[in-house]
Amino acid sequence: MSIIMNGKEIAQEIHASNLEQVERLIEQGIQPKMAFIRVGDDPASKGYHRSAIKKAENNNIECDSFVYPADVDADEFFKDYAKINERSDIHGILVLRPLPEHLSYEKISQEIDPDKDVDGMSPFNIGKTFAPKPTDFVPITPMSVMRMLEHYEINVKGKEVVVVGHSLVVGRPLSMLLVDKGATVTICHIDTKDTKAHTQKADVLVTATGKKWLITKDHVKEGAVVVDVGTSYEVDGKVYGDVFFDEVEPIASYINPVPGGIGSITSEILSERVIYSASKGVEG
Amino acid sequence: MSIIMNGKEIAQEIHASNLEQVERLIEQGIQPKMAFIRVGDDPASKGYHRSAIKKAENNNIECDSFVYPADVDADEFFKDYAKINERSDIHGILVLRPLPEHLSYEKISQEIDPDKDVDGMSPFNIGKTFAPKPTDFVPITPMSVMRMLEHYEINVKGKEVVVVGHSLVVGRPLSMLLVDKGATVTICHIDTKDTKAHTQKADVLVTATGKKWLITKDHVKEGAVVVDVGTSYEVDGKVYGDVFFDEVEPIASYINPVPGGIGSITSEILSERVIYSASKGVEG
Repeated sequence: MSIIMNGKEIAQEIHASNLEQVERLIEQGIQPKMAFIRVGDDPASKGYHRSAIKKAENNNIECDSFVYPADVDADEFFKDYAKINERSDIHGILVLRPLPEHLSYEKISQEIDPDKDVDGMSPFNIGKTFAPKPTDFVPITPMSVMRMLEHYEINVKGKEVVVVGHSLVVGRPLSMLLVDKGATVTICHIDTKDTKAHTQKADVLVTATGKKWLITKDHVKEGAVVVDVGTSYEVDGKVYGDVFFDEVEPIASYINPVPGGIGSITSEILSERVIYSASKGVEG
Repeated sequence: MSIIMNGKEIAQEIHASNLEQVERLIEQGIQPKMAFIRVGDDPASKGYHRSAIKKAENNNIECDSFVYPADVDADEFFKDYAKINERSDIHGILVLRPLPEHLSYEKISQEIDPDKDVDGMSPFNIGKTFAPKPTDFVPITPMSVMRMLEHYEINVKGKEVVVVGHSLVVGRPLSMLLVDKGATVTICHIDTKDTKAHTQKADVLVTATGKKWLITKDHVKEGAVVVDVGTSYEVDGKVYGDVFFDEVEPIASYINPVPGGIGSITSEILSERVIYSASKGVEG
């Protein structure tokens, strides 16, 4: 019998704190505002956009959307982008992906104002992953994993932690956040010869591959903490995690479901960061 | 019998290429120039400063040194620092450490022009460690390790690689460079419960702790590649590596001595980066 780590519950807690802080800011005459930038009409991106606006607005954060056609002129886009970054009434910026190929992702991530980069895409913020302060805008999904572990008072110091998946947005930065907390971290991925040999020894196993049910009970040590960051959208319309939950749950000490895990936390942390950015200089 | 990886030989190769490129730049009217910034009179820092100038000058790079007293006024320092960063005749900047406490390292590393940050101290450049291009100014010692592996055509893809030491300047960024090349990487450090259990399985073992002779033959698998990044300055005046060389050498397939290993390569890569920075825009 394991403890089910409940992402929604954690999100609720952050939500309550967000609301309180926004109220205080508005009393001081500051309306936190977030900008969404979307290029093109990718359906998944549109869906995420809609739901992110809804969640920000639930925190009484104002949202501005800048939507461009997929064939927008690059010069024009980057001129606009600079203006959005400079606007003092905008405290957080989220650039939705995918982006068309003619708009350099490198340029976009390098030119975002690091103080407004709530998603943590700027190399400047990614670099902070190596020795993060709690207020640093490091990549947001790894930060959500750390918040989940913290919430359940799971101390990774001296623990054997295995991260499966080495993506730029999750696996790599997450492994650095875990090392910073004193974990012995092994990063496994598509080129790893024997992933199971590693995962079977993990005190804490985090998986972020997007491969449905990759992790079965054969991968998991009795009593391990299992964090599932994976999401696969299957043809049946359902979302699946990386972990075969029904099989792994009985042997784990802690485990989170998908959906209802990390994703739930992420959007509240986005709002939290917009609020933090809006509050900067206010109390000084 | 192992192959001895010779840092000096690699340095010689880079040196030859550096000289050639500087000659070409000077023909085009560009004199590559490097700035050294030192605060205070720490003897080790002064020694490194002297030797770094000598090596840069050996590459026909001009050197300017900016030396401040340990009690320099912070505002004054940062005003000067901004000016040095803006000077168009300066192509590379190296800030020597240690720095006095009243000068924020965070501020110094954040305000260096990333294009002149040849040592790779800016969070912007550190962030590039997650997905580096060959010309990115990622932290320089990890890059020197990668160059050594490349030189001996040691492909880490799919290999079990263990990094011992999780320092911000070596262990952490190095682990990310290795993951980027497809290695399965485990990062061990002071909080690791059983380092030996990991190192004994390593196809490639890299150690960067600065603990003399930490790694003995009991830590090393027969035929492993052993890279020693450690340097300890002992009271006998000698420099030691992390690896008990005489004992480990017979079972390793490749191994480097200390001194004569990574440190030899680093200073040539510093020059190489100054030259790269000076050449930017020239051929465009």
